[in-house]
Amino acid sequence: MECYFDNSATTQPTRNVVDAMVEVLTDCYGNPSSLHRVGDAASDKLQAAREALAKALSCDPTELYFTSGGTESNNISIMGAAHALRRRGNRVVTTCVEHPSVLECMDRLSEEGFEVIKLPVDASGHISEVDLNDAIDEHTILVSIMYVNNEVGSIQPIKAAASAIKRSGAPALLHVDAVQAFGKLPIKPASLGIDLLSISAHKVHGPKGQGALYMKKGTRLTPYILGGGQENGVRSGTHGMPGIVGLGAAVSELGDIDVSAAQVATLKASLIDQLSTEENLVVNSPDEFPYILNISLLGVPSEVLRNFLSECGVYVSTGSACSKGHRSYVLTSMGLDTKVIDSAIRISFSRFNTAEEVTYLADCLKRANKSLRKVN
Amino acid sequence: MECYFDNSATTQPTRNVVDAMVEVLTDCYGNPSSLHRVGDAASDKLQAAREALAKALSCDPTELYFTSGGTESNNISIMGAAHALRRRGNRVVTTCVEHPSVLECMDRLSEEGFEVIKLPVDASGHISEVDLNDAIDEHTILVSIMYVNNEVGSIQPIKAAASAIKRSGAPALLHVDAVQAFGKLPIKPASLGIDLLSISAHKVHGPKGQGALYMKKGTRLTPYILGGGQENGVRSGTHGMPGIVGLGAAVSELGDIDVSAAQVATLKASLIDQLSTEENLVVNSPDEFPYILNISLLGVPSEVLRNFLSECGVYVSTGSACSKGHRSYVLTSMGLDTKVIDSAIRISFSRFNTAEEVTYLADCLKRANKSLRKVN
Repeated sequence: MECYFDNSATTQPTRNVVDAMVEVLTDCYGNPSSLHRVGDAASDKLQAAREALAKALSCDPTELYFTSGGTESNNISIMGAAHALRRRGNRVVTTCVEHPSVLECMDRLSEEGFEVIKLPVDASGHISEVDLNDAIDEHTILVSIMYVNNEVGSIQPIKAAASAIKRSGAPALLHVDAVQAFGKLPIKPASLGIDLLSISAHKVHGPKGQGALYMKKGTRLTPYILGGGQENGVRSGTHGMPGIVGLGAAVSELGDIDVSAAQVATLKASLIDQLSTEENLVVNSPDEFPYILNISLLGVPSEVLRNFLSECGVYVSTGSACSKGHRSYVLTSMGLDTKVIDSAIRISFSRFNTAEEVTYLADCLKRANKSLRKVN
Repeated sequence: MECYFDNSATTQPTRNVVDAMVEVLTDCYGNPSSLHRVGDAASDKLQAAREALAKALSCDPTELYFTSGGTESNNISIMGAAHALRRRGNRVVTTCVEHPSVLECMDRLSEEGFEVIKLPVDASGHISEVDLNDAIDEHTILVSIMYVNNEVGSIQPIKAAASAIKRSGAPALLHVDAVQAFGKLPIKPASLGIDLLSISAHKVHGPKGQGALYMKKGTRLTPYILGGGQENGVRSGTHGMPGIVGLGAAVSELGDIDVSAAQVATLKASLIDQLSTEENLVVNSPDEFPYILNISLLGVPSEVLRNFLSECGVYVSTGSACSKGHRSYVLTSMGLDTKVIDSAIRISFSRFNTAEEVTYLADCLKRANKSLRKVN
């Protein structure tokens, strides 16, 4: 049996996604910027994908920009917003548990002279609203907070961030890295007060190498990827049509995300229940986002456990795929004991996982615990 | 009959390219950064694609970095090189006929205080070696010159640029936008003295949304797309595996590019021959790069001709797909008469075009010339 429980690293594209991509790779291969029939056909596909995404986010299609992935969406948003607003203030507020593509941009902004405030998190991985209010002052030009943390699944108080910006009178834009949240939590950027939202296709059964950026109408960024002016100048470069229609197809078949979330929550609860006999089990995730479960089997090193499971045909991760080889800064920021951190694994679900797979995973974990545990 | 002669805008992916992409979208869908069996399988595919490209460029696989396209490769190279070397000099040398993704970066560098020199071109679209030598001084940190111009097919003197840098004693890196040249001219960056080379997959029957950057061993760029440190930190972001293996497959089946070039040269010569009866024909391309033929049928406006041809099922472009709606700055820089510019179309070949298609194109052009020509 093979069970893939690393869906926060990447997911398997669905049949519809693959079919949509094959169509623009074969019959409909034009460049949407070309002004002839072959280009027009591609242009129609581009527009359809944009509309599918707009429907999922309850926004206008003109508020969406296709990018090469979540990392690029984060780079374009953060660098573009900070550079566009640098004359109106110098402070940027973020958290210490963001994805590296946010944190590295923040380091770059620090080098450029911006004052970057990184909010701490508590033991459950959450920033506090008090800290948010204290950090966002009238000189703040950008607040960048991830919706759902990629390693533990903590959901950050996005609405509170929007309120704090409003209250402060700051010119700040609110950027939300929604790479893990999109397609799993209902997100309406407008009603949440979000100005910029990053999305990735491959976390929701779309293709790797494709992302999108929601940018509220009227927002101005300093363009980051410069060139032919595609995507209204926000992201130049020939449209990556296979990826774009793949994202469109993935979004079109998300279905009722509340129903999927409930289904996945049942799987997660069942897994925890089946593991309740393991006395050295520690659950590191708060109980709020069903798709991500970070646990430790104390005394079983993460890498050893991951490799054991891989041999069983069960795939999970240690930390995130984006920080391989390092001790998790997310778990460290949560103040967890090094024993907990060094045995942590992330189990991440998809709506396509089954109860049988969960039982197999539980069995493998129990076997691993028996044979690999070092008691000291 | 349908004939696609807009291969410099984009090409149709081959069956092998599509099959390779479908495989990593279905069976082999892992994230190469994931440290388990599914990730390892993806990692192997990533490495194979890198090796295929390395073979085509006679370089080491570690000198290659996958990007989201030619535009991004140009942005990473130009911004990254200028920022890395800003303490060693202030001058950047380029040409006035570069792709917008180069020229827009140059404008950004000007805003940042760099001195940007744009070399002029002659009536055949070439820069002069004298100008090159005059422009490159000891404070020059970057020289960025396209290998083949995308609108007319002029081949620039890359070796002369490398020599001029050497002669000047400048710390300059030589960046070459080889988006149109790759797969059509033999390119060995090392023997040409190139430090940075931009490549796009979709110009050589690979997928749109995929590019690569050759960077000579030992070269240092300031990273531009920041994040998880993929591609040795040069280009962060989850690997766009479908695009990457698509590029690998496209490169693997390039075959003998000299043979293809000779074949395409025959097609181009045949087209010009068939059009020799048209007294208002002007050939705007120099006779050196078989894949691009820019012509004008004086008195037939470009857009009108393009649309007429599109109705016939023949697809060509006016200018490039990246500058739609504007009078070509390339043809303007060549000093061509506005009458010539306003009736120019670009016919761009692929190694898959046939003699029959060329005859049909010639027939359609003759018909268009008869019915659309305005004599004044």
